[in-house]
Amino acid sequence: MTSEKKHYQRPVNFKTGKVEMNFGAGGKASAQLISELFAKYFSNEYLDQGDDGARLPCPEGELIMATDSHVVSPIFFAGGDIGALSVHGTVNDVAVCGAVPKYLSAGFILEEGFPLSDLKRIVESMAEAAKEAGVYIVTGDTKVVERGKADGIYINTCGVGVLPKGVRLSGSFCKPGDVIAISGDIGDHGVAVMSQRVNLGFETNVESDSASLNRLTEKLVKGVPSLRCMRDPTRGGLGTTLNEIASQSNIGMVLEEDRIPVKESVEAACEFLGLDPLYVANEGKLIAICAAEDAEKMLAIMREDPLGQNAQLIGRCIEDENHFVQMETGFGGVRMVDWLTGEQLPRIC
Amino acid sequence: MTSEKKHYQRPVNFKTGKVEMNFGAGGKASAQLISELFAKYFSNEYLDQGDDGARLPCPEGELIMATDSHVVSPIFFAGGDIGALSVHGTVNDVAVCGAVPKYLSAGFILEEGFPLSDLKRIVESMAEAAKEAGVYIVTGDTKVVERGKADGIYINTCGVGVLPKGVRLSGSFCKPGDVIAISGDIGDHGVAVMSQRVNLGFETNVESDSASLNRLTEKLVKGVPSLRCMRDPTRGGLGTTLNEIASQSNIGMVLEEDRIPVKESVEAACEFLGLDPLYVANEGKLIAICAAEDAEKMLAIMREDPLGQNAQLIGRCIEDENHFVQMETGFGGVRMVDWLTGEQLPRIC
Repeated sequence: MTSEKKHYQRPVNFKTGKVEMNFGAGGKASAQLISELFAKYFSNEYLDQGDDGARLPCPEGELIMATDSHVVSPIFFAGGDIGALSVHGTVNDVAVCGAVPKYLSAGFILEEGFPLSDLKRIVESMAEAAKEAGVYIVTGDTKVVERGKADGIYINTCGVGVLPKGVRLSGSFCKPGDVIAISGDIGDHGVAVMSQRVNLGFETNVESDSASLNRLTEKLVKGVPSLRCMRDPTRGGLGTTLNEIASQSNIGMVLEEDRIPVKESVEAACEFLGLDPLYVANEGKLIAICAAEDAEKMLAIMREDPLGQNAQLIGRCIEDENHFVQMETGFGGVRMVDWLTGEQLPRIC
Repeated sequence: MTSEKKHYQRPVNFKTGKVEMNFGAGGKASAQLISELFAKYFSNEYLDQGDDGARLPCPEGELIMATDSHVVSPIFFAGGDIGALSVHGTVNDVAVCGAVPKYLSAGFILEEGFPLSDLKRIVESMAEAAKEAGVYIVTGDTKVVERGKADGIYINTCGVGVLPKGVRLSGSFCKPGDVIAISGDIGDHGVAVMSQRVNLGFETNVESDSASLNRLTEKLVKGVPSLRCMRDPTRGGLGTTLNEIASQSNIGMVLEEDRIPVKESVEAACEFLGLDPLYVANEGKLIAICAAEDAEKMLAIMREDPLGQNAQLIGRCIEDENHFVQMETGFGGVRMVDWLTGEQLPRIC
């Protein structure tokens, strides 16, 4: 052993560098990417342990665990990016179960040649979103695949939250007579992404609503005694999510079209794109359902929150063994709100 | 509302069908794929709750959380497949931290056109691996990307385990004088995958060692009082993993080449492929390090386990502020075992 051992290669170039296959090979380059990027931006007492898994305190009780892979295209869009979205999406899945989100994992699949400057921007955005939501990114993984075997970057996050004692929410708990609320305008995320993807021919100015809902859900859990269930209507939109709940609870629903909040700009873009806002993805909206006696309380809590200012009571649960979701239109008619069949918006999240 | 609502489309064809974009769109087709495949094979009391996150019992104390994305190519290889591997890999990351793995999430990224028969085979294999390891797949997610934006299937798993009271293991706990054990022959997984990928020109008969190590790790945690750390040497192999531990613990290591178990067939294949078995990935092998006084006990526990029959004590920790890992060769020389630099085997896990 005569030659001096080099502990480090040249620093990773986050300005003009590209993802190389060896960043995913588990050797020195992988270690460098981790230390110079992920460990730097995500740093916290759990991630910094540096072992194969993160050691996490856990109070006695129950956990909620949820996961989402994110493949949105384009990766940067008005109002967000794949990084923040990957935090919001999983934080929300944990939060709507009534839990306080605590810990996130982050698994990256990178395409060879992906600009490191974009990766850095995405990682910064994730770190910021995690901080805002009050969650820790505690463990992670990076894989690199050859050019043409991915589309830049895919991110999986898995979230773990703590369920406060006695809290029980489920899509199967709704009863006839219950009231359905939505926390604000629907369709923003889907339209923001789609309008960036296709040449709309006009400016939409629609921004994604991508946001972490856990502050709002915590207030609802505490303040609405008869809260039955919460859901974030992402892929498949409000229409599909309500159908899922109706099936789970073995009930029907009646919505009032006039009360469903949709921005004019979203309405216009949907018309242009041939989309129905009811089926367009949201990433910062909440459906909440409770008994009629708590409906005004639920609405008030939503409207007090910055993310729920345009909240509305949009309908009610009814007895219906067919689990139909119906909508009373402005003209006194009734139309069916079916599940989304086929594919309205691919790779929206 | 006059027409009868169809609740279900035709059944998913798992014999000759292909993944279609609408399987990932969050509508009826997504729901069908989930109910007819994932929910069916992974079914357990937690997954069956059917909400956005799974509600999980958790004893007071500490959790271990770890994640891995799997992009192995080919997806089926001698001794395993991407499905079983995605369970083994994450179970092992949790187990080597000293925890009892309990819950897994599963996030699928599918390429449009991927054969559903292959997907079914992979899901069955995951279900089987989870059952063997005694873990539950409690929550999941499926995304579909267009042809040419993935390579058939990528799977992320995240694992949560419970750390028994008082157990503290870390790659930073090793001390000079400690003894290093490996649970068996190295390099099997990498060679099995590579020999399937390239035309080797001869039969290797090497099978991947892909397996869940949590039974063995539980025995070591209970039976080896001075256990400092455990690791599974996957990407980067034994050489890189030992370098990581040496750095974390601020020590050096001396290995004895003659004691490192490598199958002759693996040795031959590595020679042919220009690989060093020290850097070839394992998916069912364990490094364990403890104080010298417990070394024989550690070895005996390993050898009693079906997955540790060829376990060996391969070296010791020494004082070295440079964190060098050295290897005494059969001829009385010493060579450096550096970190893997660059990329030895892409997409090996």
